[in-house]
Amino acid sequence: MTGIDDLPVRDELRGKSPYGAPQLDVPVRLNTNENPYPLPEPLVERIAERVREAARDLNRYPDRDAVELRTELAKYLTKTGNHRVGMENVWAANGSNEVIQQLLQTFGGPGRKAIGFEPSYSMHALIARGTGTAWISAPRNEDFTIDRAAAERAIAENRPDVVFITTPNNPTGNAVPRETVLALYEAAQAAKPSMVVVDEAYIEFSHGDSLLPLIEDRPNLVVSRTMSKAFGAAGLRLGYLAAHPAVVDAVQLVRLPYHLSAVAQATALAALEHTDTLLQYVEQLKAERDRLVTELRAIGYEVTESDANFVQFGRFEDSHTTWQKILDRGVLVRDNGVPGWLRVSTGTPAENDAFLDAVRELKKEQSA
Amino acid sequence: MTGIDDLPVRDELRGKSPYGAPQLDVPVRLNTNENPYPLPEPLVERIAERVREAARDLNRYPDRDAVELRTELAKYLTKTGNHRVGMENVWAANGSNEVIQQLLQTFGGPGRKAIGFEPSYSMHALIARGTGTAWISAPRNEDFTIDRAAAERAIAENRPDVVFITTPNNPTGNAVPRETVLALYEAAQAAKPSMVVVDEAYIEFSHGDSLLPLIEDRPNLVVSRTMSKAFGAAGLRLGYLAAHPAVVDAVQLVRLPYHLSAVAQATALAALEHTDTLLQYVEQLKAERDRLVTELRAIGYEVTESDANFVQFGRFEDSHTTWQKILDRGVLVRDNGVPGWLRVSTGTPAENDAFLDAVRELKKEQSA
Repeated sequence: MTGIDDLPVRDELRGKSPYGAPQLDVPVRLNTNENPYPLPEPLVERIAERVREAARDLNRYPDRDAVELRTELAKYLTKTGNHRVGMENVWAANGSNEVIQQLLQTFGGPGRKAIGFEPSYSMHALIARGTGTAWISAPRNEDFTIDRAAAERAIAENRPDVVFITTPNNPTGNAVPRETVLALYEAAQAAKPSMVVVDEAYIEFSHGDSLLPLIEDRPNLVVSRTMSKAFGAAGLRLGYLAAHPAVVDAVQLVRLPYHLSAVAQATALAALEHTDTLLQYVEQLKAERDRLVTELRAIGYEVTESDANFVQFGRFEDSHTTWQKILDRGVLVRDNGVPGWLRVSTGTPAENDAFLDAVRELKKEQSA
Repeated sequence: MTGIDDLPVRDELRGKSPYGAPQLDVPVRLNTNENPYPLPEPLVERIAERVREAARDLNRYPDRDAVELRTELAKYLTKTGNHRVGMENVWAANGSNEVIQQLLQTFGGPGRKAIGFEPSYSMHALIARGTGTAWISAPRNEDFTIDRAAAERAIAENRPDVVFITTPNNPTGNAVPRETVLALYEAAQAAKPSMVVVDEAYIEFSHGDSLLPLIEDRPNLVVSRTMSKAFGAAGLRLGYLAAHPAVVDAVQLVRLPYHLSAVAQATALAALEHTDTLLQYVEQLKAERDRLVTELRAIGYEVTESDANFVQFGRFEDSHTTWQKILDRGVLVRDNGVPGWLRVSTGTPAENDAFLDAVRELKKEQSA
């Protein structure tokens, strides 16, 4: 039987498996940092309405430059990010993964290097591989903060073309202080002209502010965002970036023409009409996230500070065995391969209770 | 003012412009091979219905493997392509551009080469550039057919990793004979193990049959398709491929996880429910395409044989000046940069009449 290895695939793909969390049918799924709240029914209706309208013109290619959508995203950023941005600062694509892929095709690629501080969002390294960009993995401190001096040294030594800083970081949950981002930006520019990508996929859940204002006067800084988490629209696959207009012009050199469908644009526009409601869910999730941190500590687990909609907890001698034991109790969490730690997404209060009951039981078993 | 060239973009992108036809506001737009018929209203309603359903679950990531959609696409191919294929033979992405990008990331990329017979669909070369794949442009005959012997030589000399064959070809309109495709497949395999991508974006408009049955026993052959043309859904951005299951497994190593949104999957599924109606429009368009060929010849133009939903006509000393003169008469056609030729998409009968009136006038002017 012919398999992948019988095909002329690239050598670096041989023996690899596709990326993705196990999709298991379990009562409580807290493994992919989805928003547990379905979209409110008026928004569902508005999506159907706007998509119906778009479908009447579906025989035509979509607006290649997604002008209306970028304008509304810019308004959202201006309202929530403490910084005035316009349509010309914003670019959108099919998920922040595609945004990052376009950035690496433009500023990375063969003969170029990207650096990340790991553990972090593993797609940064995978998309680097997919675009032929060499990947440098720099370590974090034991408590998952970035060691500023060590990071500056790693940048000076490696002279990367692209620097990824995820804040709040995934899968650890902690935010990167503004001063660290600024220091790494300066270190990166001192080493060679390079792009710094601040991945703020979870920023709406943070105790602190977005780093969006930093794009002012820093044309080599990009803030990446998504509608998957705060907007409760993981199924929509809508990522975007904010940066100097020259960055927006540059990614258009590599974007596939008409990459963003008319139905995606229509759906995203409908969701942006309901921002205020969706941000109320974010407030509920932040409170639940804080409860998870408090209760997990009360039970006796170690917990990394979280500014995201998920919590990293430990420590376990064998995380994978613990992951399985929690799964046996009907709760799916995530083993991100960080030795000693697991990650749980913030669910509804009932889902969080189910999770807390499961790990409480586990703790008792171990002490018994 | 900071511009693209002040950013650390890749050298090969400097001085380039984004790909894309001019988007002009003109009464008759026959420049991007769109289907001129809006989707029938019952289908518009069905799309709204299926998207409403999908929106209720939009907080969750979409089916990463798009199983239902691939199953329905397989049924469509089995019904229309004279060859039985299953879900495991089919892969879908955001437009055939993304399908091609995934194929080049898997089988092309840095240190590898792709070949095409030009003029052809220019995105093949552009996506090769975007994925770091070297591009070899092999010429066609004066009449835009592929010179089989010359093509075999070009393959033997260059030993490409990926071979693109577009049939019906864009922008010229002519189909590539089955025997030529088979000969080039053999030549490619003799040179080195390599993938042959048959781009059938316009196959539903052809006088002949799809080459889909060729995937049987040829694991290195891929047929690429789109819902943009025959399905009248350019705004949906839904491309797909049919091939050996190992190819489908292989592209999953480079696809971005959850690349295909829940709204795209829902919309495509709705359209696939209405295949019979949509294929009736295709029959109307084929008749109109044949009328365009006949009338253009009667007026005195040269016309390339067309198996697509567009027609290449000429010859002009200066195609761009003629393009402008037709535009001045309210009809937008396409100047694809093929010296001496222009391309017109098949529109509605009224649009085609407007186009024919414009070029008839032009001919009279020249003879006067």
